[in-house]
Amino acid sequence: MKSLMMDDFPLTLSPLLVRAERLFPRVTVASRRPDRAVQYTDYGSIMIRARTLTAALLEEGIRRGDRVATLMWNHSSHLEAYFGVPAAGAVLHTINLRLPPDHLAYVINHARDRWILVDDVLLPTLEKVRDRIHVERVIVVPFSGQPVPTGSEDYEQLLGRHRPTDALPEIGEKEAAGLCYTSGTTGLPKGVVYSHRSIVLHTLATAFSLGLGQGDSFLVVVPMFHVNAWGFPFTMAMLGARQVLPGPHLDAESVLDLLEREKVTMAAGVPAVWFGVLEALEKEPSRWKLDPRLRMVVGGAAMPESMVRRFAKLGIGPIHGYGLTETSPIMTLGIPKESMKSWDLERRIAVLSRQGIPLPYVELRVQDWDGVVLPWDGQSVGELQVRGPWIARDYLENPESADKWTDDGWFRTGDVANIDPEGYVQIVDRIKDLVKSGGEWISSVAIENSLVGHPAVREAAVVARPDPKWGERPLAFVVPKEGTHVTAEELRDLLAGQYPKWWLPDEIRLVPSLPKTSTGKLSKRTLREMLASESKASTDTSVEAPIRTNVQ
Amino acid sequence: MKSLMMDDFPLTLSPLLVRAERLFPRVTVASRRPDRAVQYTDYGSIMIRARTLTAALLEEGIRRGDRVATLMWNHSSHLEAYFGVPAAGAVLHTINLRLPPDHLAYVINHARDRWILVDDVLLPTLEKVRDRIHVERVIVVPFSGQPVPTGSEDYEQLLGRHRPTDALPEIGEKEAAGLCYTSGTTGLPKGVVYSHRSIVLHTLATAFSLGLGQGDSFLVVVPMFHVNAWGFPFTMAMLGARQVLPGPHLDAESVLDLLEREKVTMAAGVPAVWFGVLEALEKEPSRWKLDPRLRMVVGGAAMPESMVRRFAKLGIGPIHGYGLTETSPIMTLGIPKESMKSWDLERRIAVLSRQGIPLPYVELRVQDWDGVVLPWDGQSVGELQVRGPWIARDYLENPESADKWTDDGWFRTGDVANIDPEGYVQIVDRIKDLVKSGGEWISSVAIENSLVGHPAVREAAVVARPDPKWGERPLAFVVPKEGTHVTAEELRDLLAGQYPKWWLPDEIRLVPSLPKTSTGKLSKRTLREMLASESKASTDTSVEAPIRTNVQ
Repeated sequence: MKSLMMDDFPLTLSPLLVRAERLFPRVTVASRRPDRAVQYTDYGSIMIRARTLTAALLEEGIRRGDRVATLMWNHSSHLEAYFGVPAAGAVLHTINLRLPPDHLAYVINHARDRWILVDDVLLPTLEKVRDRIHVERVIVVPFSGQPVPTGSEDYEQLLGRHRPTDALPEIGEKEAAGLCYTSGTTGLPKGVVYSHRSIVLHTLATAFSLGLGQGDSFLVVVPMFHVNAWGFPFTMAMLGARQVLPGPHLDAESVLDLLEREKVTMAAGVPAVWFGVLEALEKEPSRWKLDPRLRMVVGGAAMPESMVRRFAKLGIGPIHGYGLTETSPIMTLGIPKESMKSWDLERRIAVLSRQGIPLPYVELRVQDWDGVVLPWDGQSVGELQVRGPWIARDYLENPESADKWTDDGWFRTGDVANIDPEGYVQIVDRIKDLVKSGGEWISSVAIENSLVGHPAVREAAVVARPDPKWGERPLAFVVPKEGTHVTAEELRDLLAGQYPKWWLPDEIRLVPSLPKTSTGKLSKRTLREMLASESKASTDTSVEAPIRTNVQ
Repeated sequence: MKSLMMDDFPLTLSPLLVRAERLFPRVTVASRRPDRAVQYTDYGSIMIRARTLTAALLEEGIRRGDRVATLMWNHSSHLEAYFGVPAAGAVLHTINLRLPPDHLAYVINHARDRWILVDDVLLPTLEKVRDRIHVERVIVVPFSGQPVPTGSEDYEQLLGRHRPTDALPEIGEKEAAGLCYTSGTTGLPKGVVYSHRSIVLHTLATAFSLGLGQGDSFLVVVPMFHVNAWGFPFTMAMLGARQVLPGPHLDAESVLDLLEREKVTMAAGVPAVWFGVLEALEKEPSRWKLDPRLRMVVGGAAMPESMVRRFAKLGIGPIHGYGLTETSPIMTLGIPKESMKSWDLERRIAVLSRQGIPLPYVELRVQDWDGVVLPWDGQSVGELQVRGPWIARDYLENPESADKWTDDGWFRTGDVANIDPEGYVQIVDRIKDLVKSGGEWISSVAIENSLVGHPAVREAAVVARPDPKWGERPLAFVVPKEGTHVTAEELRDLLAGQYPKWWLPDEIRLVPSLPKTSTGKLSKRTLREMLASESKASTDTSVEAPIRTNVQ
């Protein structure tokens, strides 16, 4: 028996564009500009401009599947590109503006971007690689409010030359809509190509899994170049809900200011941002009046238990989101089940500190090193593998990465995890961050979480140091909080109460900051490289301020 | 550029079965049995039994695409079939148990049902057609708790012979999963074949559009044989939320009793049910303690403004759901926009009385009789047409219905509607229920809504009477509320204040009840046939109690 439904009706982004414009034209999108002014527009204006961008692309030679890149902060013109580029049948390549120049040039050339839309304030970033990249047009968005530099092409003039298209082209749901590169913590960045279908299904599933609705006001702290800002700009446009886009101002005070003035009910960002927000709130608890409904998705890196606890004290519920560039990104959300609402605080915090349960249609399994699938017992630890309609099945032109998929087609996350009987995933570590001492595994993440649980510790990183006797031994780097005092001995005693003796780091170094990657994540690779060179220089154990940070 | 996502990962119902069992095994499903006892089970047990049913079907000869029918009330075993039958690659045909015998035999034979699962209490219904239908096996579900009659096959014994399958078969998302027949208000019932994909997408979209979540307790008053109970059994299983299934007890007191004892937060049913509930609540406002979050989807027929108003007085928010068997069913939901929350009560009631805004991916247009697409101005009235991933593109083996689709592939709803600038649809009438008087259209629904706004009117129906001078003229049938008194003159005066003179019915007849179809909808066909025969009998204008009702 054949289905008699319109099963060929494609799941593309274009109906969401049309929907936001027709049903929610006066819903606000707020953007903070470089001069800190907050500018308001609405879905009506944004989507008319998106359709104008679609017309400009089609009428000025962009063809089906061509890449159009953005090098932009979070603001309303970036949202225009989110809808206008895929609606033209082109592929939106959102470039990480914090990439080092080599990587920046690499991804632009590897993606074969034809056009780049760039914020005027980010022109200096692009200038560094301008002579190394092969793009046809660089179109400057006057984000600062200043006239675009002479000799540059003006985004507003491009739009001015065209009328919004009334007939969006028909696109198949499996055509490419977006392209993001992994941050390349190991080796060169790898490209992940999203389909219209994968983005739409991710959008539908996150909307109800997070209980989002038209009444929400959503602060998108996570950059729009970071896996489509976890899909939230699409989700909120579909729901017809307010979006607040912070531009380049991601410091704690700026974030808190937006949370208050835009009556934000939901936000999304990496732990580093929320650490800053927490510290500011704890310092001046009554300075900001936050919406009582405020909750936030914390992702991009593990949120330590102490963070859950500190937010809970402030009456704010953080939600772990776990995902990767290859997974669109959301695989799991740390939402407590209804049955857990009656649990005592400690039990609830333990659950909220895990990475959460899978979204519908995300299938997870944990495999041990021999390929045996492990039970959901909260104990058995192995590699987390995943499949589903918004999971990548390959990288863009990168055949040497074929081993990232199992023979039966599951994506290897590279994360070490267990799943408890309730279905909550816990990421124990990245496979490559495990410390193998005397043939046994030590979880660097576990020790880090314990260290940041100390009131005087701001950040911590545990990495393996090559060891002639044990193979590897853990070493901890700790950044103390400003204005506090703590010693390595104190921290060692703290860990000794929680872990077997052979887990304790051989050394705990107090440092002023930790190295970060272009997406603001801790760069353990930098630390490991440093330790490797120390080991080579054998007797020399002192380091001259080798650790810098490039986090915002 | 090609998408590199797992775009072939199929959207079938099987992952929802597995998910409910693994993630929400202890969430309750309550079912009321024929003896009124409420029985509790949970998703864990139901889904294990569903997988056992899957095994039984596969191991006893049901093949891909074969039809397995249910003739069942709303209870947990029906939910097992909802998941267990499609998971086997078979097609779940949910039969309307109120069909007259001719139609019942017709749909079973037309669908070529191989097996029928039937509630023991519904065996007498099946017996009436047993010698006219060609099914291989009739399997009796001991819903009453009594042993199944000797000589009948026992559903529990069938399950008892099999082990739950651990390897659900791989199914394509465009394979058939479900089959429902239209109620056949005109002519024979027509079959609509749902795909896995269409059901899944409908499930995802309704979940967030109604703001449903794991914390909800959902009373499914709408029968599970009525367009998959509007998809809610699937939706709530996906969310891991409680379901309350009322069995055969659909009277107002039984419904109110369940609303109270199961702390229901969301319910779904036809207006007739909610009319009864309203009357009972108004009579004894403090008798039932309802959850303050309680809201309900009202569908299957238009909810008159007076009903919205009366519910609002009780602090309960009814939500219009509009759809048809051919549309899975939900096309629009009458959810107020965020911006409308500040509107005064009258304006909000006016919006809530419309049929609502379309779900994402439901595309609507209104065409006039010349095929011109009309603007969303709240005035222009024409035929409502729809397309989208959960809209039918054909009927099952029914070539004479090809005119239900436009040449460019939109489904003709047969409803006359306008869409206002906010995107809210208002159904003015069924095309066939419009009264054409002197070349101008009169809306029967508008007049009916005004009539039921009178405090003494329980139900009203306006139909066309053939008229030698005007072609057609409206005639109204009115059922007064018990214990009230109203005259035709009073009602005529009420209408005269609201409509032009030529709209006023030539006659207003007070009758004890109105004829209903097998799904409990008003049967205007019966009324029209009666009037036609009256017209033929020219001088004879009296009718001897021709109006019966078969509504529950």
